[in-house]
Amino acid sequence: MKRYLYPFSAIVGQEEMKLALILNVIDPSIGGVLIRGEKGTGKSTVVRSLADILPEIEVVEGCAFSCDPEDTESLCPHCRERLEREGRLPRTKRKIRVVELPLSATEDRLVGSLDLEAALTRGEKRFEPGLLAAAHRGILYVDEVNLLPDHLVDTLLDVAAMGVNYVEREGVSFTHAARFVLVGTMNPEEGELRPQLLDRFGLCVTVEGLKDPKERVLVMERRAAFEADPEGFSKRFEAENQALAARIKRAQDLLPEIELPHEILYQIAKKTITLGVDGHRADLTLAKTARAHAAFQGRREINEEDLKIAERLALPHRLRRKPFEEISAQAFKM
Amino acid sequence: MKRYLYPFSAIVGQEEMKLALILNVIDPSIGGVLIRGEKGTGKSTVVRSLADILPEIEVVEGCAFSCDPEDTESLCPHCRERLEREGRLPRTKRKIRVVELPLSATEDRLVGSLDLEAALTRGEKRFEPGLLAAAHRGILYVDEVNLLPDHLVDTLLDVAAMGVNYVEREGVSFTHAARFVLVGTMNPEEGELRPQLLDRFGLCVTVEGLKDPKERVLVMERRAAFEADPEGFSKRFEAENQALAARIKRAQDLLPEIELPHEILYQIAKKTITLGVDGHRADLTLAKTARAHAAFQGRREINEEDLKIAERLALPHRLRRKPFEEISAQAFKM
Amino acid sequence: MKRYLYPFSAIVGQEEMKLALILNVIDPSIGGVLIRGEKGTGKSTVVRSLADILPEIEVVEGCAFSCDPEDTESLCPHCRERLEREGRLPRTKRKIRVVELPLSATEDRLVGSLDLEAALTRGEKRFEPGLLAAAHRGILYVDEVNLLPDHLVDTLLDVAAMGVNYVEREGVSFTHAARFVLVGTMNPEEGELRPQLLDRFGLCVTVEGLKDPKERVLVMERRAAFEADPEGFSKRFEAENQALAARIKRAQDLLPEIELPHEILYQIAKKTITLGVDGHRADLTLAKTARAHAAFQGRREINEEDLKIAERLALPHRLRRKPFEEISAQAFKM
Amino acid sequence: MKRYLYPFSAIVGQEEMKLALILNVIDPSIGGVLIRGEKGTGKSTVVRSLADILPEIEVVEGCAFSCDPEDTESLCPHCRERLEREGRLPRTKRKIRVVELPLSATEDRLVGSLDLEAALTRGEKRFEPGLLAAAHRGILYVDEVNLLPDHLVDTLLDVAAMGVNYVEREGVSFTHAARFVLVGTMNPEEGELRPQLLDRFGLCVTVEGLKDPKERVLVMERRAAFEADPEGFSKRFEAENQALAARIKRAQDLLPEIELPHEILYQIAKKTITLGVDGHRADLTLAKTARAHAAFQGRREINEEDLKIAERLALPHRLRRKPFEEISAQAFKM
Amino acid sequence: MKRYLYPFSAIVGQEEMKLALILNVIDPSIGGVLIRGEKGTGKSTVVRSLADILPEIEVVEGCAFSCDPEDTESLCPHCRERLEREGRLPRTKRKIRVVELPLSATEDRLVGSLDLEAALTRGEKRFEPGLLAAAHRGILYVDEVNLLPDHLVDTLLDVAAMGVNYVEREGVSFTHAARFVLVGTMNPEEGELRPQLLDRFGLCVTVEGLKDPKERVLVMERRAAFEADPEGFSKRFEAENQALAARIKRAQDLLPEIELPHEILYQIAKKTITLGVDGHRADLTLAKTARAHAAFQGRREINEEDLKIAERLALPHRLRRKPFEEISAQAFKM
Amino acid sequence: MKRYLYPFSAIVGQEEMKLALILNVIDPSIGGVLIRGEKGTGKSTVVRSLADILPEIEVVEGCAFSCDPEDTESLCPHCRERLEREGRLPRTKRKIRVVELPLSATEDRLVGSLDLEAALTRGEKRFEPGLLAAAHRGILYVDEVNLLPDHLVDTLLDVAAMGVNYVEREGVSFTHAARFVLVGTMNPEEGELRPQLLDRFGLCVTVEGLKDPKERVLVMERRAAFEADPEGFSKRFEAENQALAARIKRAQDLLPEIELPHEILYQIAKKTITLGVDGHRADLTLAKTARAHAAFQGRREINEEDLKIAERLALPHRLRRKPFEEISAQAFKM
Repeated sequence: MKRYLYPFSAIVGQEEMKLALILNVIDPSIGGVLIRGEKGTGKSTVVRSLADILPEIEVVEGCAFSCDPEDTESLCPHCRERLEREGRLPRTKRKIRVVELPLSATEDRLVGSLDLEAALTRGEKRFEPGLLAAAHRGILYVDEVNLLPDHLVDTLLDVAAMGVNYVEREGVSFTHAARFVLVGTMNPEEGELRPQLLDRFGLCVTVEGLKDPKERVLVMERRAAFEADPEGFSKRFEAENQALAARIKRAQDLLPEIELPHEILYQIAKKTITLGVDGHRADLTLAKTARAHAAFQGRREINEEDLKIAERLALPHRLRRKPFEEISAQAFKM
Repeated sequence: MKRYLYPFSAIVGQEEMKLALILNVIDPSIGGVLIRGEKGTGKSTVVRSLADILPEIEVVEGCAFSCDPEDTESLCPHCRERLEREGRLPRTKRKIRVVELPLSATEDRLVGSLDLEAALTRGEKRFEPGLLAAAHRGILYVDEVNLLPDHLVDTLLDVAAMGVNYVEREGVSFTHAARFVLVGTMNPEEGELRPQLLDRFGLCVTVEGLKDPKERVLVMERRAAFEADPEGFSKRFEAENQALAARIKRAQDLLPEIELPHEILYQIAKKTITLGVDGHRADLTLAKTARAHAAFQGRREINEEDLKIAERLALPHRLRRKPFEEISAQAFKM
Repeated sequence: MKRYLYPFSAIVGQEEMKLALILNVIDPSIGGVLIRGEKGTGKSTVVRSLADILPEIEVVEGCAFSCDPEDTESLCPHCRERLEREGRLPRTKRKIRVVELPLSATEDRLVGSLDLEAALTRGEKRFEPGLLAAAHRGILYVDEVNLLPDHLVDTLLDVAAMGVNYVEREGVSFTHAARFVLVGTMNPEEGELRPQLLDRFGLCVTVEGLKDPKERVLVMERRAAFEADPEGFSKRFEAENQALAARIKRAQDLLPEIELPHEILYQIAKKTITLGVDGHRADLTLAKTARAHAAFQGRREINEEDLKIAERLALPHRLRRKPFEEISAQAFKM
Repeated sequence: MKRYLYPFSAIVGQEEMKLALILNVIDPSIGGVLIRGEKGTGKSTVVRSLADILPEIEVVEGCAFSCDPEDTESLCPHCRERLEREGRLPRTKRKIRVVELPLSATEDRLVGSLDLEAALTRGEKRFEPGLLAAAHRGILYVDEVNLLPDHLVDTLLDVAAMGVNYVEREGVSFTHAARFVLVGTMNPEEGELRPQLLDRFGLCVTVEGLKDPKERVLVMERRAAFEADPEGFSKRFEAENQALAARIKRAQDLLPEIELPHEILYQIAKKTITLGVDGHRADLTLAKTARAHAAFQGRREINEEDLKIAERLALPHRLRRKPFEEISAQAFKM
Repeated sequence: MKRYLYPFSAIVGQEEMKLALILNVIDPSIGGVLIRGEKGTGKSTVVRSLADILPEIEVVEGCAFSCDPEDTESLCPHCRERLEREGRLPRTKRKIRVVELPLSATEDRLVGSLDLEAALTRGEKRFEPGLLAAAHRGILYVDEVNLLPDHLVDTLLDVAAMGVNYVEREGVSFTHAARFVLVGTMNPEEGELRPQLLDRFGLCVTVEGLKDPKERVLVMERRAAFEADPEGFSKRFEAENQALAARIKRAQDLLPEIELPHEILYQIAKKTITLGVDGHRADLTLAKTARAHAAFQGRREINEEDLKIAERLALPHRLRRKPFEEISAQAFKM
Repeated sequence: MKRYLYPFSAIVGQEEMKLALILNVIDPSIGGVLIRGEKGTGKSTVVRSLADILPEIEVVEGCAFSCDPEDTESLCPHCRERLEREGRLPRTKRKIRVVELPLSATEDRLVGSLDLEAALTRGEKRFEPGLLAAAHRGILYVDEVNLLPDHLVDTLLDVAAMGVNYVEREGVSFTHAARFVLVGTMNPEEGELRPQLLDRFGLCVTVEGLKDPKERVLVMERRAAFEADPEGFSKRFEAENQALAARIKRAQDLLPEIELPHEILYQIAKKTITLGVDGHRADLTLAKTARAHAAFQGRREINEEDLKIAERLALPHRLRRKPFEEISAQAFKM
C-alpha cells in the first residue's frame, strides 16, 4: 500500500515559490530559498510534493552519510576506508530526502554527536550522524527559521555555504559532506532574520494567501477530493507531474552547457554595484539563477528575462536600509 | 466498583463549548478547540464527561502507540514488523483516552524520549513513547495552554497539524502517528496566545459563568447530588447520554456522504477574503465544521445555519488587528 | 517521654483563622485556607496544634500512600494489587499528618519522582512518593506560598482541586489519590498571589497582631510558661482541647445529614452574580462552608449566620478590581 | 603546639556587639544577632574569640549531629536507634563550634544531602549531614548574609526559628535538631535584607570604626603584638577571659530562676503596640533579652536598665517605614 | 585524486588583507590579523588559499601537539618523556594547518579537556588536546570573532599572546605550546569588539566589496571557471603561486638579518606617544611589521614606506575615542 | 637547556608597581597588590620576572599543599598524619611559584574539589587541591580580576585574608593553609571593583604607558634583543638581579627587628580618621608597608618617607565618595 503526497501539479498558485524551488533543484549551488509568509499557506506541502517527483539518486549502500559513489573525493571516512579495503563501493538508488529540522531539535541532533550507545556499552568514541548528514544531497527544510536560536541558524548556514559539516564537540572530531537545498520558512510578523543571515539564502520569495475566491474554492475542492481519495486524485495529476519531472531532468543535463556570457556578467555587476550590494556571492547567485532559468526554459543562452527573474528572486533580500517591500515592488516588477 | 464521571448531559449551559467538542469528535480533522474562559468554569469536566460516552475504538493489542489494525499505513515500527512477521495483528477494544498534559510535564515526556531503563540495563537505544503517543486516536487536553513554554506549544501544534510525531533527540530518531482532538484551555487574563498559534486551533469558544441564579442553583444542586450519590445521579442521565452518543455515532457514519457544494465553498472563500483571512486552513475548517454540523443534525446537505455556526466557531480567533470581542459580537450573532 | 505541642486551646485570639481551619477539617472539600498576615503571628503553631487534637485515621499498614482501607476505589496501584492477591488489606491507625512543603523542596520532591536507588541498583523504574503522597488525608502546610515558583503553586492547586496526583516525568507515569486540607500562608508585603490562584483557595483569612496589651502579655506569659514546663502547661488545657475535638467529631458525623435548601442556594447564587463572581466553585464553597458551620454549631439547618460567616471567609479574595480590604470591611461585617 | 586566637578581652571597643553575642550565649532562644557594618571591622574575630572562652559541651561520642546525651527527646535517628539497642549513649566533651557558612557553599552543603559515596558504592540512600548539623549547639556564622541568595537565607532562618532541620531532597527525607546561635553580618552599602528577614534575627547591632586615634593605635599595637608573639599576648589576657567566662556561666545558671514579672511584660506590650510591631516574637525576644541581661548582671530581678538595653538591641530593626538610624538614635538612647 | 583550493594568486583585489596575512606568515610574532568586513567577501578563502601554498613544517611524528623536533624547549610532556626515554624524536613533514574555530565549539574543545574515553574505560585522567593544540604552528581562523562569548575570546587572545595554553579544568592540569597566526573576522554591523580586545590583534584590515564592475565580472568568471574545472584553473595560477611562495620563504630567511635601527624605533615611539597609544605591544608590532615588509621586499633596511604600511596596518584599531574610519582615512593614506 | 624569563632589572620604568610587589614579598601580610592599568603594559612580565629572582623555599617533599616543614602548626592533614606516623617530614627546596588564575577556571579548580578519579575508580571521597593550594607560599596572579564573577573574587579575597582555605562542597570538607601574595590586575575602562573588594587589596598602584620616546625606544630595543638572544641578554642583567635579590633577602631578615613606634601609629590613626577610613585593616597595612619599606632601605627605624610611600600605596583605593585620581593626585604627591 502506498502513502500519497498531495501532487505538486495540483497546487494552486504560488508560482514564484514553486519556481524558486525548481531552480534550486536544477542548480543546488544557488544556495537555497527563504520563504516568507504566514502560517497556513502550505509551504511544507509544496516542498514535499516537489521532492516526491524528482529523479532518484545513487548512494553507497548502507552509508549513513549518503555518499555518492561517483564522487570519491567527498566520501565519508567509513566509505573511504571501505573503498581502500574492498576496492569498490556497493550502490543503491533512492528518492531524495526532505529532512525537516523540528523546532525541538538540539544542536547535537543537527550537527551530530558522540554515539552514546557505543560510548556506554563499548567505551568507543564514535560519531553519530545528525540531521545535516541525513539531508546530504536532499532538501533540508526548516520551518520558522527565524525562531531558531541564532547559533543554530549560524551553524546551519555555515554548513550550507561550505557544503561540509565540521564537528568539534565532546571530544569528537568529524567531517563529512553536507550539500543540500536549504529551504527555510518564516513569518515576518514573528520577527525578521538578521540582515547577514537573510543574505545567506540564495533566493527569497514571499507567499501570500490567494485573493481570488475561485482559486480558493479550487484549493478547497482539490484538498477535499485528495483527502477523500488520495489515489484517484493523484492519478489525475500524474501526467502533469511526470512532464515537469522530465523538464527538470532536461534542465539539469543542459545546465553545464550554458555559458555565462561576459555581457550578462557585466550587467549583473553594474546592477549590484549601483544597488550597493557587496560581495561576490550575490553576483554569482544572480548569474546562476539566470542560467538555471534558461535551462528550465530549454534555452542554451541567458536572456533578459532570465536575468529579470533572477533579480526578482535573488536581490530584494540583499538590499539594505530601505523598506523591503517598497523596493521589491518598485524595482523588480516582473 | 465503578468510578463515576459527572454525566455529560447533566452539565448546565455551556452549549457552544459542548457543540465545538462534539463537532471535533464527529470530524477530528477540524483541528481541535481552544476554550477561552476563567478558571472554575468546569472545562475539564465537560471534556472528560464527553469522552466517557463516546464509542470504543479498536486497537492493536499491546501496542503502546494505539495502532489502528485497519489502518496498516500508519502502523508504528513495532506493529509493522509484527505484521510482517506474523501476518496479522491481534485486536482489542477500549474507550478513547483523555490524555492530560500537566503543566509540570517536560518536552521529553510530551514527545517521547530515549528509554533510560533499556539504555542503562541492556545498553539498548529504544524509544519510550510520550504523551503524544498516548493521545493518539483520543483527546489531548492542555489546561492553560497559554502558560506552556512557546516551544512546547509549537511542538504540540505541529504534531496536531501533521498527525505525525517526528522525534529527533538524544540520538533517537522515531516517527509515529499522533492524531487526536486537541483541546486547549486558556484564561485570557493570564496572557493571550500568539496570533499564529491562535490560528492553529480549528475552533475557538469563550465560556462565561452563568448569569441566571436559577441555573447556578441547578449547578449547585446537581453537583451536591452527584457528590452525595454518584451512581444514582449518573443513572438519572443515562438515557440522555446514550441518546447523544447514538446521535454522534450516526453523524460520524453520515459524514463521508455529505458533499461540499461549490456554492457553499464560494460563499466561504468570499467571506474569508473579505475578512482578510489568509491560508486555506481557515477555509477548509469552515467547510468541515459546517459539514460536521449538518451531520450532527442528520442532514445530508449543508445549509445556511451550518455555515453560520461554522463561522461563529472557526472565524473570530483568526481575525487580526481588531479587538477580539468586538468583532465576534458584531459579525457572528447566532 | 513525650514531645508537647503548644495546646490549641491556649492560643490567644486569631478566632477567624481557627474557625476557617476547623471548618476545613469538618469538610475537606471546602478547599483549604489561605492565611494572609505578617511573619511572627504564629500561623504554623495554630495548624500543628489543631492537627494534634484531631481524631486518628485508619490506613493500610505499610502503604506509602496512606490508602484508606474503606475506600477501595482510591487505592494506590500497590494496594490494589495486594487486595487482589491477598483478598484483604491490613489496617492500622495513626494521627493525621501535617506535611510541610519547605521552600527548598524541588518539584521532584513535591510530586514524587523516579526512585533513583531502585533504578541504580536494580535497574527498576519505580515511583518514589513525594510530599503530595505524604499529605494524603492530612494537612499540607505551605509557608509563604506566594514565594513558591508559579509552576509549583499551579501543580499544588491542581492536585488539591482534583484530589489526584498525576505524575509524568523521567519516563515514570503514576497516579495516586492526594486529598488534603491545603493551608497556605503569605505575607502580602512580599507580593500577592495571582488572582487566579487566590480563587483556588476555598477560604481566606487575614491575621493581625493583637492590639490589646493585656492579650499580648497573656501570649508572652503562656509562651514562657509552656517553654518552662510543657507537660504541666499542656495538662491545663487538656479538657478544653478534648471538648473541642469532640465537637469537631460530632460536626463531621452530622455533616452528611444537613440539607442544602434551595432558598439558601438561590441566595448564594444571587449574591455571587451581583458581585460578579464567576464559576460554580465559589458557589459551592459558600454552600459547603455554611453547612460545615451549621454542623459545628450542632444544627441540622443552615441559617443566616452560617451564610454570613461563609461569605466572610469565602468571598473577599474572589472579588476583582476593587481593593481587597475595602470590600471585606464594608460587605462582610460579622 | 597550640594555635592561638586573638583573646576576646583584648578586643578594643565594639561593646554593643560583644554584649549582643554574650546575651545570645546566655539564652540561645533569643534568636541570634545581625551585625551591620563595614568590612574590616573585625566581626569574625569577635565571634571566634568569644566561642574560644565558652565552657565545653557534652555530646554523644561519634555522633555527626552533636546529640546531647541528656536530651533524649531530640536525638538523631542514629542515636535513637543506638539508645534502644544498647540502652545507653557514650559521652564526650568538646568546645562549642563556630561553623562558618562560606559564600561558595551550596544548599546541599547547608542542609545536608544524599551521601553520594554510599549511594555509588553500596547503593544505599543515606543522609550526609550539612553545615546546619555541624552548627547544632554552637554558633553558625554567616558573613555577608545579605549577599546569600534569598532561598538560602529563608532556609537558614526557618531552621534557626524551629530548631529543627527538615530535609526533603533527592529522595532523602531526614530530620534532626539544629539549634544554634545564628550570627549574620552585613554591609548595608551592599544592599539591605528584606524587612521580613531582618525581623527574624533576635538582635541587631551596628558596628562602626573607632573614631579615637588612641583606641586605633591600641588596636594596631595589640594586633602587632599578637602577630609577633601569640602565646605571650594571650597570656596577658587570660585572667580577664576566665573572669568573663565564669560570669557567663553564672548567668546561664541563674537564668531559669529569673521571673518575667507581669508589669515588665505589660510595659513591653504597650511599647510594641505603640511602635506598631506585630507578632509575639518581638515581645518575647525583648523579654528574654532583658532577662538575659539581668542574669549577666547577676541580678534575679529585671529592671528598667535591662529593658532599655533589650529595646536598643531588639527593636530598631523591627520598625517599619521610618529611617532606621533616625529611630534608633531618638528612641533608644542608652 | 586531489581536492583543489581556489588559487591564492587568482584572488581579485583585497591587497591589504593579503599583505597583512603574508606579513604575519613571515613573522608570526606580529600577533595575527583582524579582518573587518561584511559577509560574503571571501575572507575564509583567502586564508585557506594562502596556507595552501606555504612551505611544509617538520613535526614530531605521532605527536598530537605538533611539537617541533628542533625546539626541544617547547616539547609537550609526552614528547619530552619520549626524548628522555628514546634519546631522539622521529620526524615527519606536513602542510601547515588552518584550524577553524566553529561558532558551535565549546570551551572544552578550544582549550582541551579531560579525555572522557580514557576516564570511563580505564579510570585514567588524561588530557585531550583541543583546537588550540591543533592550531600550533599553523593558522587559527575564527569567523565572526565578535560573536564569540567574551570569555572564549579572552582565552583565545591570552593564549595567542603567551604562545602557551595553560589548562586548569575538571581536575586536569596541562600546559603546551600554542603558537599560531590568529586570524579573526568580524562584521562591524553585528557589533564591535571591546577596545581592549581590538588592541590584542597585531594588525587589522577592512575589506570592502569591489566597486569596479570589470573586477566583479573577473571574480565571477574566475569562480565559474574554477567550479567548472578546478584542476585546469589551478594550473593556470601555479607559476604565480610558486613565485609568491618562494618570495615568502626568502623573506622568512632574510628576517633575522634585518636590524631595527634606533632612528626608526624613535620615530615609532614619537608617533605612538603623539597618538596616545599606550603599552609597548603597539610599538613592537609596528617595528616588526615594518621589518617583515622590508623582508618581503627583499630589502635589509627598513625604510619610510615599510613604516607607513606598518602604521596603516597596526595603528588604526588602537586609537581611541575617535571614529575609526575617519582617522584611518586621514592619517594613513598609502 | 634553560628557558629565560625577561630579567626583572631590564624592565624600564614602572617603579611604583615594582616597589609594591617587592614590599609584599618582604612582608606578605601586607595583603597583595591591585594593579590598575591598560592591557599591554607588561604587568604579568613584571610579576614573573620578580618571582624568578626570589630565594627558594623549603617544602615537604611530595606534599601537594607545599607544607612548610618548619611550621608544623599549619600542616595539611596528610603531612600531619605522616609526621605522627613517621616522626619527621622529608624536605626539598624549590622556587616560589607564580600561579595564574585563568579566566576560564571554575570555582572547583580555584578552591579544590572532590577527586573524581578516586571517586569513580575506588569509591573514595578525596580532596583534590585547587589553585589556592598551588599558590600557597607563592604568588597568585589574577589577570583582569574585575572580570571574574563576584563570588569567585569574594572567595579569593576571603582566603587571602584568612590564609586558610575552607572547602565545603559536594560532601567534601577540607581545610588547608593558603598564604600567598595576591596580585590582581584590572583595566579600569572595563569596570571597577566594588568598593568593598578594592579595600581588600593591601596596596594598589596605577600603571601607565611610558611618555618619553627614549624610554619607549629602550623598551623596544631590549625586547628585541631579548627575543633574539635570551641567554646573552639575561647575562647582561644578572649582576643587577642578584643585587636586588640579596637586598630583598636582607630586608626579610631585618623586618622582625623593626619596631612600630607609637608616634608613627598615632600619625597613621589620625590620618585615617581624618580621611574617613574605617577598620583596622587599613591602619595595619599602612604600618606594615612603612615597616617593609624601611627594611628595604636597610633601616631599623620607620621615617616620614616610609610613611609617605605607605600612604601613597595603601590609601587611595580606600577613600570613598571622591573621584579616585583627584585625591590620589592631590594628597599623595611623592
